[in-house]
Formats: sequence, C-alpha cells, structure tokens
Amino acid sequence: MNLLSLRPDGRSPAQMREVRITRHYTKHAEGSVLVEFGHTKVICTASVAERVPEFLRGQNQGWLTAEYGMLPRATHTRSEREAARGKQTGRTQEIQRLIGRALRAAFDLKKLGARTLHIDCDVIQADGGTRTASITGAFVAAYDAVTQLLLTQQIAQLPVIDWVAAVSVGMVQGVPVLDLNYDEDAKCGTDMNVVMTDQEGFVEIQGTAEGAVFSRIEMNQLLDLAQIGIADLIKKQKEALGLGIA
Amino acid sequence: MNLLSLRPDGRSPAQMREVRITRHYTKHAEGSVLVEFGHTKVICTASVAERVPEFLRGQNQGWLTAEYGMLPRATHTRSEREAARGKQTGRTQEIQRLIGRALRAAFDLKKLGARTLHIDCDVIQADGGTRTASITGAFVAAYDAVTQLLLTQQIAQLPVIDWVAAVSVGMVQGVPVLDLNYDEDAKCGTDMNVVMTDQEGFVEIQGTAEGAVFSRIEMNQLLDLAQIGIADLIKKQKEALGLGIA
Amino acid sequence: MNLLSLRPDGRSPAQMREVRITRHYTKHAEGSVLVEFGHTKVICTASVAERVPEFLRGQNQGWLTAEYGMLPRATHTRSEREAARGKQTGRTQEIQRLIGRALRAAFDLKKLGARTLHIDCDVIQADGGTRTASITGAFVAAYDAVTQLLLTQQIAQLPVIDWVAAVSVGMVQGVPVLDLNYDEDAKCGTDMNVVMTDQEGFVEIQGTAEGAVFSRIEMNQLLDLAQIGIADLIKKQKEALGLGIA
Amino acid sequence: MNLLSLRPDGRSPAQMREVRITRHYTKHAEGSVLVEFGHTKVICTASVAERVPEFLRGQNQGWLTAEYGMLPRATHTRSEREAARGKQTGRTQEIQRLIGRALRAAFDLKKLGARTLHIDCDVIQADGGTRTASITGAFVAAYDAVTQLLLTQQIAQLPVIDWVAAVSVGMVQGVPVLDLNYDEDAKCGTDMNVVMTDQEGFVEIQGTAEGAVFSRIEMNQLLDLAQIGIADLIKKQKEALGLGIA
Amino acid sequence: MNLLSLRPDGRSPAQMREVRITRHYTKHAEGSVLVEFGHTKVICTASVAERVPEFLRGQNQGWLTAEYGMLPRATHTRSEREAARGKQTGRTQEIQRLIGRALRAAFDLKKLGARTLHIDCDVIQADGGTRTASITGAFVAAYDAVTQLLLTQQIAQLPVIDWVAAVSVGMVQGVPVLDLNYDEDAKCGTDMNVVMTDQEGFVEIQGTAEGAVFSRIEMNQLLDLAQIGIADLIKKQKEALGLGIA
Amino acid sequence: MNLLSLRPDGRSPAQMREVRITRHYTKHAEGSVLVEFGHTKVICTASVAERVPEFLRGQNQGWLTAEYGMLPRATHTRSEREAARGKQTGRTQEIQRLIGRALRAAFDLKKLGARTLHIDCDVIQADGGTRTASITGAFVAAYDAVTQLLLTQQIAQLPVIDWVAAVSVGMVQGVPVLDLNYDEDAKCGTDMNVVMTDQEGFVEIQGTAEGAVFSRIEMNQLLDLAQIGIADLIKKQKEALGLGIA
Repeated sequence: MNLLSLRPDGRSPAQMREVRITRHYTKHAEGSVLVEFGHTKVICTASVAERVPEFLRGQNQGWLTAEYGMLPRATHTRSEREAARGKQTGRTQEIQRLIGRALRAAFDLKKLGARTLHIDCDVIQADGGTRTASITGAFVAAYDAVTQLLLTQQIAQLPVIDWVAAVSVGMVQGVPVLDLNYDEDAKCGTDMNVVMTDQEGFVEIQGTAEGAVFSRIEMNQLLDLAQIGIADLIKKQKEALGLGIA
Repeated sequence: MNLLSLRPDGRSPAQMREVRITRHYTKHAEGSVLVEFGHTKVICTASVAERVPEFLRGQNQGWLTAEYGMLPRATHTRSEREAARGKQTGRTQEIQRLIGRALRAAFDLKKLGARTLHIDCDVIQADGGTRTASITGAFVAAYDAVTQLLLTQQIAQLPVIDWVAAVSVGMVQGVPVLDLNYDEDAKCGTDMNVVMTDQEGFVEIQGTAEGAVFSRIEMNQLLDLAQIGIADLIKKQKEALGLGIA
Repeated sequence: MNLLSLRPDGRSPAQMREVRITRHYTKHAEGSVLVEFGHTKVICTASVAERVPEFLRGQNQGWLTAEYGMLPRATHTRSEREAARGKQTGRTQEIQRLIGRALRAAFDLKKLGARTLHIDCDVIQADGGTRTASITGAFVAAYDAVTQLLLTQQIAQLPVIDWVAAVSVGMVQGVPVLDLNYDEDAKCGTDMNVVMTDQEGFVEIQGTAEGAVFSRIEMNQLLDLAQIGIADLIKKQKEALGLGIA
Repeated sequence: MNLLSLRPDGRSPAQMREVRITRHYTKHAEGSVLVEFGHTKVICTASVAERVPEFLRGQNQGWLTAEYGMLPRATHTRSEREAARGKQTGRTQEIQRLIGRALRAAFDLKKLGARTLHIDCDVIQADGGTRTASITGAFVAAYDAVTQLLLTQQIAQLPVIDWVAAVSVGMVQGVPVLDLNYDEDAKCGTDMNVVMTDQEGFVEIQGTAEGAVFSRIEMNQLLDLAQIGIADLIKKQKEALGLGIA
Repeated sequence: MNLLSLRPDGRSPAQMREVRITRHYTKHAEGSVLVEFGHTKVICTASVAERVPEFLRGQNQGWLTAEYGMLPRATHTRSEREAARGKQTGRTQEIQRLIGRALRAAFDLKKLGARTLHIDCDVIQADGGTRTASITGAFVAAYDAVTQLLLTQQIAQLPVIDWVAAVSVGMVQGVPVLDLNYDEDAKCGTDMNVVMTDQEGFVEIQGTAEGAVFSRIEMNQLLDLAQIGIADLIKKQKEALGLGIA
Repeated sequence: MNLLSLRPDGRSPAQMREVRITRHYTKHAEGSVLVEFGHTKVICTASVAERVPEFLRGQNQGWLTAEYGMLPRATHTRSEREAARGKQTGRTQEIQRLIGRALRAAFDLKKLGARTLHIDCDVIQADGGTRTASITGAFVAAYDAVTQLLLTQQIAQLPVIDWVAAVSVGMVQGVPVLDLNYDEDAKCGTDMNVVMTDQEGFVEIQGTAEGAVFSRIEMNQLLDLAQIGIADLIKKQKEALGLGIA
C-alpha cells in the first residue's frame, strides 16, 4: 500500500492534525478554551461553584463534573437538538462521563475545598476526535480556573496532580494511525481513545473493534502511537499555559 | 444628567455596539454566521432539509423554523444545561418562536419548494441582546443557504422578500437608548425588541415595562431609535454579503 | 369596502365583544373569576401560598407567577392534553410568561410579604383573545385575593399599584379592528396584544406581522383602538369589583 | 348515633347530593356537558376523531378513550399543574383508565366505524366524587356525540348498548352512606366506587378499606345504596337527554 | 358444559395454581421473596429506609410505598422497557398504587418509627395474576423486613396488624373460576381482584366487566371463590414464614 | 503481602468466581439465560422482532440492540427505579451500549434477515461485574434465539461469527486480579473490562484508573489475566449450549 495516499488529508500515520489551544476564548468563565484538532473545534469552559454534590457534603472536599454537547449543525447533517428532544443521547452521556473521569484523575479534589468544577465541552464543529479534543482542552480550562482560585487566595495550593490529554488511534486498512478525523473514523476497523498523563501513565483506554476484532499486537502498535500523540498534546498544553520551557 | 456617563461603555444613547458579521464560520452548514453585538456572540446556522412538517405535506411549499440555545457558561454565572435538565426554559421557547416568526417574514416559503430551513442560534457569549443578534445573524445565514440552493439550481428564484434585522431599545434612567448590553438591560425600566425590514416595515415589536409603565411618547422615542439601529444593521448585513454598494 | 360586513359578527371596527366578569366562580380559590370576551371563556384563579421562590428567600417580599392552560376541547378541533403529552407547548409558555409580567406590573410585591400569588388561567372555550381575556380576568381574581389578605389582617395595605387589562387589535383587510375573535385572528395581517394600565401607561406591547409588515402609521391606529378597549375593560373590572362609581 | 347529624350537609345516609347535568356547555365539542354532584363540577366533552389507535387499524371498528384532569385550584389547596410538572399523577391515570373502561361498556364500538371518541373530563371544582361525576356526565356527552353522528348519517345505528352511571358509597362512622363529599371521603373507613348500567348490571366495582377492613355484610349494604344512587343518576341522564318519559 | 375441559391447564374452577413462596431469594434486601403462582413469577423485596416522605415529617410515624415493574420479556411478546420509554404506563401505576394500599392495611405504620418500607415487585415471568402474586409475596417480604427490625431492636413491637393476600377470580364462559392464568384472563368476561385479610375482612375489591356486565349473584359467587383462594394463600404465607402450625 | 488474604472470598488472583449459566430460565423469550458470576445474577433474554430500525430499512439486513437494567434492590442499598425516575442513568446507557457493541461483533447481521434481536439484561442481584456477566450470558441467549430461527427455517445459516465473553480485571493493592466482586471493585485502583472472542481477538477494552494511573506493564498483566478468564467463560458457554466437547 502507498502510505502517502492512506490518509485523506495526506498525513503520515503517526502525524497529529494541527492542534491549537486558545485560552480566554469567552469572557465569563473562570477557564475558557477553544481547542482545535484540525477541523474539530470545541469550546471548553471550567466554572467554579461554591457547593458540592450531596454525597460530599461536610467533607471539605471538592468535585469535578463534566457535560458535553454538540451544536446541532456541528455535524455534516443537522442532528436533533438534545434540549428540544428532552434528553441527552447515550453517546453524549458516555462521552461526558469519560471527560469527567479523565479530568478527575488530574486534580486533587481534596485541595479544592468544598467547591465543584463544572466542565462544559461544546462542539461547534465536528470532524472526528471530539471527545479527545474535549479532554485536552478542558484540562487547560480547568488549570486556568484553579490557578485563579490560587491567585485570589481561595485555595492554598494548586490542586494539579498531573497533566492529562487524550488522543484517538485506529487501524485504517490495516495500518495503525494517530488522531483519526471523521472520514477515517467512519471507515476504520478498530478505534481506540487513550487518556494519558505526562508521565506516561494511563488514565483511560477505550478500544472498540468495529467490523473486525483486534489482536494484542495491534493494540500495542496503537498504544505506541497514542503515546506519541499524548506527548505532543501535553507539549501544546504547556505552551498554551506559558509553561512550555519547563 | 450627564449623558456622557449614562452608558457603562461610554456609548451615546443612539449608538450601537460594534457589530461584526462573519460568514462561513463553521464548515458543514449551508449557511453559517458568527454575529457579534459587542461582547454578545452568537453562532447562527441555516440548514436545508428535504422535507416539511406534517401540516405542509403535499403543498409544494417550504417551512422555516428556529431553535435557540445558550452554552451553559455563556453567562456571568453558569446556567443549567437544558439538554441535561430535560427541557427548554420558557425564555428559550419564547425566543426561538420570535426568531422563527421574524425570519419567516423575510422569505417566500412558496419559492423554497418542499424544504425546511432549520435555523439554529447558539449563544457562545452573552452580554445582552442575544435575541436581536440572533435574528440579525440568522438572516444572513439563511440568505447564504437559499443562495446556495439557487446556485445549485435546486430552486429557480431567490426566495428573499426583504431584509430583516432586530435591535433592542430601552429607557435607562429616563433616557431612551439603543442596543442595550447586559448591565443596561438589568437596570432599564422598559425594554423593547424591534424587528424591522429594510423598508421600515415592522415585523415584530415586543415592549415590556419592568418596574414602571411607559407612555406613548416614550414608545415613539424608542421606535425612532430602533429605526436608526435597524438601518445600521441592515447595512452591515449587506456589506457582509458583499451587497453593500447597492 | 363596506365596513358593516367587515366583521363576521357584525361589530364595528372599534367595538369590543360583550365582556362579562363573574367573581367567586369557584369556591376554593382566594380569587376566582370567569371572564368572557364573547365566546372566549377563561377561569382565572388567584391562590395565596405562604412561601416564595428560592431567589426571594429571606427578603420579606412576595412573588406573583402565572400558569395558563386550555382544556383539550376548548378549541374547534381537539388539541392534545399537555399533561398527557408531558410538556407545555412553546405557545403556552409564551402566554403564561406574558400573564405573569403583566400582573406583576399591577401589584406591589413588597407589600405582599413573603407570599406567592399563583395565577391560573384555564381556557374552557376559545374564540380568540384568550391571553387578553386571561390578563383582564386574572387581575380581578388577584385583586380579590389580596383584598382578602387585607381583610384578614395578613397584610397592612392593599398592594395594588394600578389597574391592568389587555386587549388585542389587528389589521383585517387593511382596517384596524379591536378585540379579534378567532376567525378574524386567523386571517388578519397584523396582530397586536396590548397590556395597559388605568392611566394609559403601557405594560406590554406584542405586535406581530403575519403575512405583511406594518407601518408606523398602522401601529398608531392600532394603539388608538387598544386604548379604547382598555378603558372599556377597566371600567368592567371596576364594576365587577363594585368600584365602578369611583 | 343521631343520624341527623351524621352528614355535614344534613343529608340522610341514602340521599344523593343535588345532581345537575347541563348539555351543550361549551360550543366546539360534539358532546359537552357540565355535570354537578353538589359542589363537584366537571366539564365532560366527547370529541369525534376520524382515526383509530394502531392496534385497531383496518378492522372497521371504533375506540373510546378518556382523559381526566383537574384545574390546579379545583381543590382546597392548589395542586401542581400536571402539564407544568411534566407528567400525570398515578391517581389521574387510575381515574382516566376507569372512565375509559366504564364508557366502553356502554357503547358498541363496532357500530362506531373507524372513529375514536375522545372523552375529556376536567374538574373545575372538586368536593368528592369527581370520578363518579365524570363517568355520569361523560356518558351524556358521548351520547350526544354519537347521536350527532347518526343525525348526520355518518353511522347507521345508535351505538349505545346501555346507560352507564357511577356513584360512590362508603362507611362513615359505621353507617353506610351514599355519594360522599370531600369531608366524608376524607374520614370514611371504606370507600367504594360503583359503575352500573340501567339494568342493574355491574360494570366496575372498586372498594378500598382505608383504616379498617370491611365485611361481606357491609359490602352488601354499600351495594344496596349504590343501586339506589345509580337509578337516580340514570333518571337524571334521561331527563337531561329529553328521554325521561320512557 | 364439561367442566373438565373448561380451564386450559385442567384445573377445577375453585383450584388455585401451584403457589410457591421462596424467602431470602436475593441477598441484599431486608426482605426478599420469589413468589410463583403457576408460571407467574415475581421477585418481591422490602427495603427499609431511615426517612419518611415530606407529609409525615416530624410525626414519628412510618410509611410504606410500593413500585411494580415487568422485565421487558416477562410477557409473550417483548414490551417496551419503561425506563427507556421515560415513563411508567397507567397500568403500572394503577398496580403499584394497589399494592401499596393493600400492604398498608396489614402494617401499623405508627409502630414502624420514622422509616419507609419500600416494596418492589418485579415480574420476571408473567402468566396472569401478577398483581395478586405481588401482593401475596410482598406481604411475606415486608414481614421479614419488620421482623429483622424487631430482632435488631430498632422497633419494640412487630407492627403487623393482619395477614394480607390477594387473588383474582373471573367468569369464564359463564363459570366462576379462581386464580386466572393469562389465557383465561384474556377471554374472561369479568375479572375481579380481591385483597383480603386472615379474618375474612376485605381490603380491596376491583371488579371489571370486560364485554358483559355482571350481576350481583355472579359477584357473590366470585367472592365465595376468592375467600377460598385467600385462605389457601395465607396458609402458604404462614408455612413460608415457619408459622404454619399456629 | 500474603496473597492468601488478598481477596475477601479467598480466591487466588487468577481465579474466577463460580460461573453458572442456566438456559431456558424464563419461558416466553426466544433465548433466556440466568447467568451467575458468584453472587452476581443477571437474567439475559434475546427477543426476535420482525422489523429493523429506520436506518436499515430495505437493506435486508438485521440489527442487534441491548438494554440493561437493575432491580432497585439488586444492590446493597436500594437505588431509585429508573422507570419511576423517568430516565436511565448515564451508567445504564454506557453499559447497554457496551453490551450492544460486544454482541454485534459476534453475529453476522446480514444473515439475520430484516429482524432485530433485542437483548435485555436485567440484574436481579449485584456483586460486581454485572456488565461482564451480562455480555457473557447474553451471548448464550442470543445463540439460542438464532438457533431457533434456523431450526424453524426462518434463516438459512446460523449467523454466529464468533464466541464472545467478557470479564473484569483490576489492580487490587498492586496485585492484578481477575473477575472483581463488589468489594474489590470499590477499592481497586484500576478497573478494566475486556470483551474477547474465542480466538483471542479483542472486541472491546475499557480500562479506567481510579485513584492512580496504570502503567503499560500493569496493563499487560491485566490483559494476561483477562485472557485466562475469557477462555474459562467461553468453555462455560459451550458447555451450557451442549457444545463443550468440540
């Protein structure tokens, strides 16, 4: 196979799309980021609320929760507005639960005090990888929000445990490729979303065979690619936060 | 009163905020516009669907319908996500019905064929005037969508009847002012949203006394201001569509 | 045009339908009114609750909120029961929000104490003008409810600021007419609902062009008519409350 | 015990409240009845729809279904509006299913053709016995609706099998009484709703012990009373329909 | 008629199906019973919660409430999952309200303290009589739950007033039969569910004519049968609880 | 560490709980299985419907979809009934989507014809691993259902591609263990659910760090364990289906 023609946008198998992280994208939220993975664009905000869910009352500990949505015409054909339909789809719920788990791994909620960080990831344009872009951007928004809590002396220490980013990998025509766009995602055999930290620790792995099962060898190839992508993304997060040199 | 200090952002009473209309803002929709009235930012898309609602079946006539939403953190404090809550608020429904009526006045739905134009207005940052910005931007998005139908020979004639834009006016400390931002809106006595055409025809007037009733004289002052704003907005719409010279 | 044949029921353009306001229509509510605008019949009740919404807790101030409904067969063809359908339509929400705003303009909620006035307007027969009849009747029901609070010494002063009534006006075949019934409403070009006080102050104006835009001159003609209707309605309200002589 | 003081309104144990059946109460429905059992007032309408539910498609047979509701302030204290709450209570569903079963027993749905009779029972004032008043009034409304179908030659025969009415009976302080009002219902030990035909056939019996169980003897006493009440109600139905002499 | 061939499973008219009551069926609930009426199988659990509904706060009194459900494929053809559909059917609500009323008649809620007994009846296989099996099994589960409260000294006295069981009876081809299975239920003219105590007291009677009305004589025949069935069921309950000898 | 005391139930790290698969558990479904992983018990049914979802119409191809639920008291403390609450939780939706994807990998839906296999997994007792037990049991139920289609000559070939089972693995106190029960799941650092085929192909991997991230080495250890468990489970599936010898 000619690897040059493998990917519709001419990327090499291990090449990420262009990633852009724009902080302070909207003005009200404590943290607000526009994250772009190629044509995929997600607004990620982090909002601080001075309360915690019922199950954490009186424990002087914080919480982080995430919600995810897509504008109806973020996609090729218009999808029904979930608010009009009256409920979120299973896909939406699955994604927002993933974002929440991924982000909770990055923050020390005990140091947050009795506060909730609300993460909102809203896709304004979709081209594959909306959940991985969401996690990557939301980390930066949350970082900004907790930094502001520190600067205003509402907390004593930055409650950041680790850097967290996410990327998709998949088998396209038998070749492992990094950061699938929509066209690749639609035709790939195996699709895996990987959430990792700066130290190459895994936070979450979700791999799904679509059409054909995958072998242990293929999984290892995919994870190798994912590590490359994650390292690149965390570098981008650090640059965006002005912490790139360290 | 010192009129110079009347408005928090230093505008004169008859001065609009800076208005920007960015076409082709997202790539999938037939029409896609980012409209900004100062800090208020709304993504307006127009999507073409090859079907009509039940009540229009078999009449070879089109329909236009609108939906409105706000990202949870478009506002000063985070508001609950309507999709998670399971229903749209009364305010949302009121606004999207207004947008739909306003836009239907601008298009000849008979010339559209058996198609529906779905208008989606999603506020990504709110600072007052989200419904008037939505109408103003959505008109341009819908114009782009029907132009594309014409260019691809799906329709024979441009089904545009008139230009439509909307602006808010209100009494602030007894002075009629144009295009209220959030702070002004919160403290104004009377708030009026006016939808007009290029020919100074009224499409919709919604005036509400909040706190004190308003007189016929005050209403006339407000409508004078609204006409100034509408003329300005339609000029901006024409420029955005490259039709400014005519 | 022969004005005599303009209106299906033979009224002159500036003539209201017969208006009847029957107090104490049902026995449990603190205020209970059957209001009739011709064949349109609405039961309006005002209920006093010894609590306020969350956002007013601890402020020793009251609130007034309104709900609106239609019996399924109040209309020509049966409409779906909103309770069975599981949600209120956008139209219902728009109307009940209008009723609430209109009534709040008439009462001093600070003098009400930490109480809520629940207004319920239920249409038992519809023939156009259900929202204007609702506002006109609900004012009387609310007046009765607060009077009872005064008589039982639960409040020290009658918290009534002004009299409020509402009427519709519209352009039918180019002629401005007052108080549209269903047939007129269905075919009229412009439809305007006007809420005013006894002192000719505007509380709310909602004008909508349906089919053709309306001019400033037409709007003024409509408002002239509305003022005639409002004066008539407030006279009827005073008579119903036995305050007609003043 | 002094039977004279047993019932709050001075009735003897076997005495019904005053029953009034007003036909043509609202103007749009094919059948429309205001039924009053003392202070309990219910609007019952019967609407004809030219379609049947899915499970009866293509069988040239009709259907009858019922819905029930209460205005929020039909009761002593305001109850939440089911349409605003987003669902019907279990009580409402239980009652509307009972009304439907009771009425279906009275009509030959095969003779109705492929039509649905929608029965709507809306309580505007409640004082006990709303479900029995609903059934009694709804029968008359449905009778009117099918008579109109016959008179307009849409059906060939009146599809009425039998007369159906309903009444409540209960044990109050050990005494069986007929047609309980709200106060009696609240304190009675056993409450039974009985639906019967003109020929003393039972359509439905629902007896509930509240507080103390009831014996077979007591049940027989209650059924004796119910038969008295039903005979009286069917006489009232016939008078209302101008069929009293037969 | 040949009574031998009357019932599809060869039972005589007054013969119950085989009834089995298996305690401790699942391990977490305070009371857990699998009840079988022939092929009808229901898991009944009783759960103790240390709180009461709003309307009982501060009265040192308990509450008992019941919920009912069916696995989607408990029935001949798969029925829609109520949780996926987003609401319980009217039938479900009617049944769970019946179970709650029946069980509340058997327990002295004052002796329960400020606790709620949650009864859950989930049908895993349906063959008619699911509501009567539910009541019969739920009594045993609730008995186990309150016994455990007594043994752990959380309450001072067993709050059991009486034994309660339920059975269905019906007219099949003019013959009164006991404990209808699905096939009999589908074709029977009258269907009656009877809830009784050990002392032959009636707790609830719900009789419905389906197709043809029933006479007083038939009702008495049905009640005679029901008493036979109830006596048998309460014997089974006592045996299951090891209280059979008394 | 003493490995003997590592697991609360005394299992060795690589030891599954006792697994039981009971076919024909309920009588109506085309496939019906009770699957037990130790104390975890799930009823899995497969129902055949002669229709397909909208997106597959006219393609002569089948579909398989899954739903999941828990009886309210399957758990240590009673959880709210989803049908009463009015919606499924995010967890439920996530699990039922997983079951659907896993099972679709095992069947050739083209050979199924225009039919839908509805899989229902209802947990009657939960002790960890409900989703893996569900997948393992549902495969057998679906196998039975398609076998019946073959035997009744509704399809020409058995549409089974592969055997599919699922198991959980996790790091408990730094030791990789197989098939976690509830207590282990609650305290484990990393939890991974693995769905595999008979041929050691991966269908789905979902690994989540809870508390601490996991390394690539740990992941490999977990996958080694999972393969052991899957082989055991597929052996059990074959035995249950009487295909154990092959």
